Amino acid sequence: MVDTRKVGVLGGGQLGRMLIAAANNLNIQVNVLDAANSPAKQVSAHDGHIEGSFKDAAAVKKLAQSCDVVTVEIEHVDTHMLEEVAGQVSVEPSWKTLRTIKDKYAQKLYLKEHGVAVAESVDLEGKGVEGLKDVGRTFGYPYMLKSKTEAYDGRGNFVVKSEESVEEAFEVLGKRPLYAEKWAEFRMELAVMVVKTKDGVLTFPTVETVHEDSICKLTYAPPRNVNKKTAQRAQELAKKAIEPFEGKGVFGVEMFLLKDNSLLINEIAPRPHNSGHYTIEACERSQYEAHLCAILDLPIDQSELGLIRPSIMLNILGGQDTDSHRKIAEKAFALRIGAKVHLYGKGDARPGRKMGHVTITKRTLAEAEVKIQPLVDFVDQMKGKEIVPHPEHKPEPLVAVIMGSDSDLPVLKAGLEILQKLQIPFTTRITSAHRTPDWLREFSKSAADTSVRVIIGAAGGAAHLPGMCASWTTLPVIGLPVKATHLDGLDSLWSMTQMPRGEPVGTVGINNSTNAALLAVRILGASDEVVMERLRVWMEGNEHEVLRKDAELLDKGYEVYLEGMGKK
Amino acid sequence: MVDTRKVGVLGGGQLGRMLIAAANNLNIQVNVLDAANSPAKQVSAHDGHIEGSFKDAAAVKKLAQSCDVVTVEIEHVDTHMLEEVAGQVSVEPSWKTLRTIKDKYAQKLYLKEHGVAVAESVDLEGKGVEGLKDVGRTFGYPYMLKSKTEAYDGRGNFVVKSEESVEEAFEVLGKRPLYAEKWAEFRMELAVMVVKTKDGVLTFPTVETVHEDSICKLTYAPPRNVNKKTAQRAQELAKKAIEPFEGKGVFGVEMFLLKDNSLLINEIAPRPHNSGHYTIEACERSQYEAHLCAILDLPIDQSELGLIRPSIMLNILGGQDTDSHRKIAEKAFALRIGAKVHLYGKGDARPGRKMGHVTITKRTLAEAEVKIQPLVDFVDQMKGKEIVPHPEHKPEPLVAVIMGSDSDLPVLKAGLEILQKLQIPFTTRITSAHRTPDWLREFSKSAADTSVRVIIGAAGGAAHLPGMCASWTTLPVIGLPVKATHLDGLDSLWSMTQMPRGEPVGTVGINNSTNAALLAVRILGASDEVVMERLRVWMEGNEHEVLRKDAELLDKGYEVYLEGMGKK
Repeated sequence: MVDTRKVGVLGGGQLGRMLIAAANNLNIQVNVLDAANSPAKQVSAHDGHIEGSFKDAAAVKKLAQSCDVVTVEIEHVDTHMLEEVAGQVSVEPSWKTLRTIKDKYAQKLYLKEHGVAVAESVDLEGKGVEGLKDVGRTFGYPYMLKSKTEAYDGRGNFVVKSEESVEEAFEVLGKRPLYAEKWAEFRMELAVMVVKTKDGVLTFPTVETVHEDSICKLTYAPPRNVNKKTAQRAQELAKKAIEPFEGKGVFGVEMFLLKDNSLLINEIAPRPHNSGHYTIEACERSQYEAHLCAILDLPIDQSELGLIRPSIMLNILGGQDTDSHRKIAEKAFALRIGAKVHLYGKGDARPGRKMGHVTITKRTLAEAEVKIQPLVDFVDQMKGKEIVPHPEHKPEPLVAVIMGSDSDLPVLKAGLEILQKLQIPFTTRITSAHRTPDWLREFSKSAADTSVRVIIGAAGGAAHLPGMCASWTTLPVIGLPVKATHLDGLDSLWSMTQMPRGEPVGTVGINNSTNAALLAVRILGASDEVVMERLRVWMEGNEHEVLRKDAELLDKGYEVYLEGMGKK
Repeated sequence: MVDTRKVGVLGGGQLGRMLIAAANNLNIQVNVLDAANSPAKQVSAHDGHIEGSFKDAAAVKKLAQSCDVVTVEIEHVDTHMLEEVAGQVSVEPSWKTLRTIKDKYAQKLYLKEHGVAVAESVDLEGKGVEGLKDVGRTFGYPYMLKSKTEAYDGRGNFVVKSEESVEEAFEVLGKRPLYAEKWAEFRMELAVMVVKTKDGVLTFPTVETVHEDSICKLTYAPPRNVNKKTAQRAQELAKKAIEPFEGKGVFGVEMFLLKDNSLLINEIAPRPHNSGHYTIEACERSQYEAHLCAILDLPIDQSELGLIRPSIMLNILGGQDTDSHRKIAEKAFALRIGAKVHLYGKGDARPGRKMGHVTITKRTLAEAEVKIQPLVDFVDQMKGKEIVPHPEHKPEPLVAVIMGSDSDLPVLKAGLEILQKLQIPFTTRITSAHRTPDWLREFSKSAADTSVRVIIGAAGGAAHLPGMCASWTTLPVIGLPVKATHLDGLDSLWSMTQMPRGEPVGTVGINNSTNAALLAVRILGASDEVVMERLRVWMEGNEHEVLRKDAELLDKGYEVYLEGMGKK
């Protein structure tokens, strides 16, 4: 039964709070073990909460007695007590999983054992300053010095930049159990939320995470400038990383996308994760709902985890003022961009503390980026960061205009101007069907996996370009016949229209690039009301212009009118 | 400041609970006046709640002292006490507004006074059985007998079907203050959530509401088979209805869409409303957030109230069993359709009681309908309703195939079969440019406001059809030249491709309806991954078929192969 079982959770911070918000929708009672008035407890009124620390064994035992399944919102818990209570109550994920993951070095070894790609790392416990220097000689500088335990949001990490900074690093972290990681030269960081249920392993979409001062600042779903195949590979890697662990629930998997496009696991977390906040608004099931489904064996399916709309999440971190988070929240409202504001109820802000977050979802990631930019600027300004004027935002192309030869470009000019006027981002490429058949094949085969939604192919003579392109893509291809030396363009026109059954080319008039562009706009407008409205207004303008001319002709008479045209 | 002011709310039912869920996200404290453990209080732990009845004057006074602004989740409150406290604390919306609206007859008179279209109604207080009979003679039967106050979810309403049922009606409702309403022969019921802020009046999208036994059962956003203009008119009417009322907050406006397409207000509510639940998942701001924004003067804009995705909301009403609502919630999960389940924490179910609701949002309303149908069936079955087998679900057409004459139909056959094979819903119409120019104009001008996203125009000879259509629509138009008696189809081909700059027709090969259909599929696939994947698989099948033939030819040699083709 949905709302008859009780869930116990170790930790009552923001993750617990959002878990309870999801549980409240389902009327599931969640008993929280944490201090009184912790963020999670504020949104859940019943007498089942336990006051105390999630590290306290006696308190954990008491919590276990009060519920049907125990879970965590933080991994730094007493796993020995969880091991003890696991006989009487379900503990999800397993205490074994928590024990392995809470020690980051053990976590890395475990992943490596199971054939999962992780950064090279080396144990430094008891190795002292000399150990750190040895690592520098093996890994080179910079490298990451990390505490095995209790490390998060940048705390417990130190970037060792050179042998000169070894002493400082040891001073800062030397009292903790240490290990070192080889520096990963990454292109960007990606993250995937994984759902482990009794039936298998599901994944949320891949997101890009942007860190500042080692704290997550932004997430982008989908990641920027990452193709679908890479995003899929990231999901597969995340799945592979989580599969060997025992127990049910959601897991956060952070990874590096290296410059050679390979992927490396950075860290995993056995619980809901900051990089999964976007799922509240951007997916049919949030990571919190998914966690409840997983630990309570409620049905959940991969098809329910897709992205509804592209989204960007911005963390609200505490600044110098105690009310800095409120100012950011207010700015989010003031911008009227439909952003969802989440404040965690943590009281006064402290620098770097996660006080809340903002999520924006829009029809396209480009739109989301434009809309949230002033808020990102506001946050940066509060932080004292110099705001560099943004380079003009360049949205991803929706139309690819390909041509057999640069000699077609003059014919295309009028069409490209129409695309500009109607604010359709496009790209222009030279892809000859006969001189560069392999390049045309490569371009056409991958086009559907990019942002491009329509292709315009211009060609003269035999004009195989759009037809061959259409044979290698599922995108709509518009053929623009270009008048060459002979046959008045008819050769191209027929070559494009008379394609065999199976691979259509939607052909427009000879040399009429205006209409090729307008057809592309109509195709985009079919699923985009904003574009369609822009087109409607443009067409209305044309109509008015012709009507104006008609009135002028009527008024002046044809002779004066012709004079005005310089054609008397 | 976002989270420093306190809101007091009279009533702690499901509307209060969802209001608090929205307030929790913003860390706004909401003090609830209602019984202990009422649904709203369960999701809000602090010592600011007041135990008591929202009809109790002393309790209202106490609540008012505890917060910065007082609002309601129900209109059946003590407005005299609200009038008294309005000097010390903001009351939103105004007690005057609540007083007018809580009396349904006064509400109607007020709307009428302000020029808003409402059903004709007549006061029946103290008129006895004879009064009811008089109404029957004036209004005819059936008519609606309603209690002026404390009427909701069908309680306090009686459909008087004939003079014979007057006695029974009076027996049921005679002790309450009554009025009668003329029966509205409506095509469907619509509803609009209105947001009244300090700066003006905003509206959420129009939804269709479906009632069963006078209780809301389903809402559809957008409404089914209602064009955009009508939906817009409904929003305008709702705005007009709410504008004259004093105060801030959201208002629910229920109306009838009559058979002549005119609109009539049915009832209004000065608070969040069942018909606005869908906004939680389907809009960037929910009705609850919007209410908080309005009463706390947080910025909110019309652009934030649009529909993210089409959605259907199904109420979970109590059945015969005390756990009937849980069974429905479980079924919603079991279907794995990404539906959001909301349970209100009301304890055991009672027949007809609102225990929760389910919202589904999908890329199209058609998809949402198909996905939620098994849940609707499940609910009907529990209710003991006979489930009539659904007539095959007929999704709205995405492609319109128009032809100049039925003589073009045989040419179109192959293309229509492709659309069927690739599961693209389409409609076929005869719209001659020359014999029915007005009908073609009407069709083309309205096409973009329907579900249609692409038009295929087939014509022979002069073949003006697709070109004229393109001149009256912003949708992409595909031209299919049909070979007529003379000129081998070239006349049509040129007539379609050689359109003037401004109105493109994407033309395919002569008589090649297969390619016309496939181009339409590609256009739809450009914004619909499911369609694109279906097309990809189909193309792959074609590729395999040709490769199979090639292998067979190689194997058998050309002579045997020709024999097999019967062409030796």
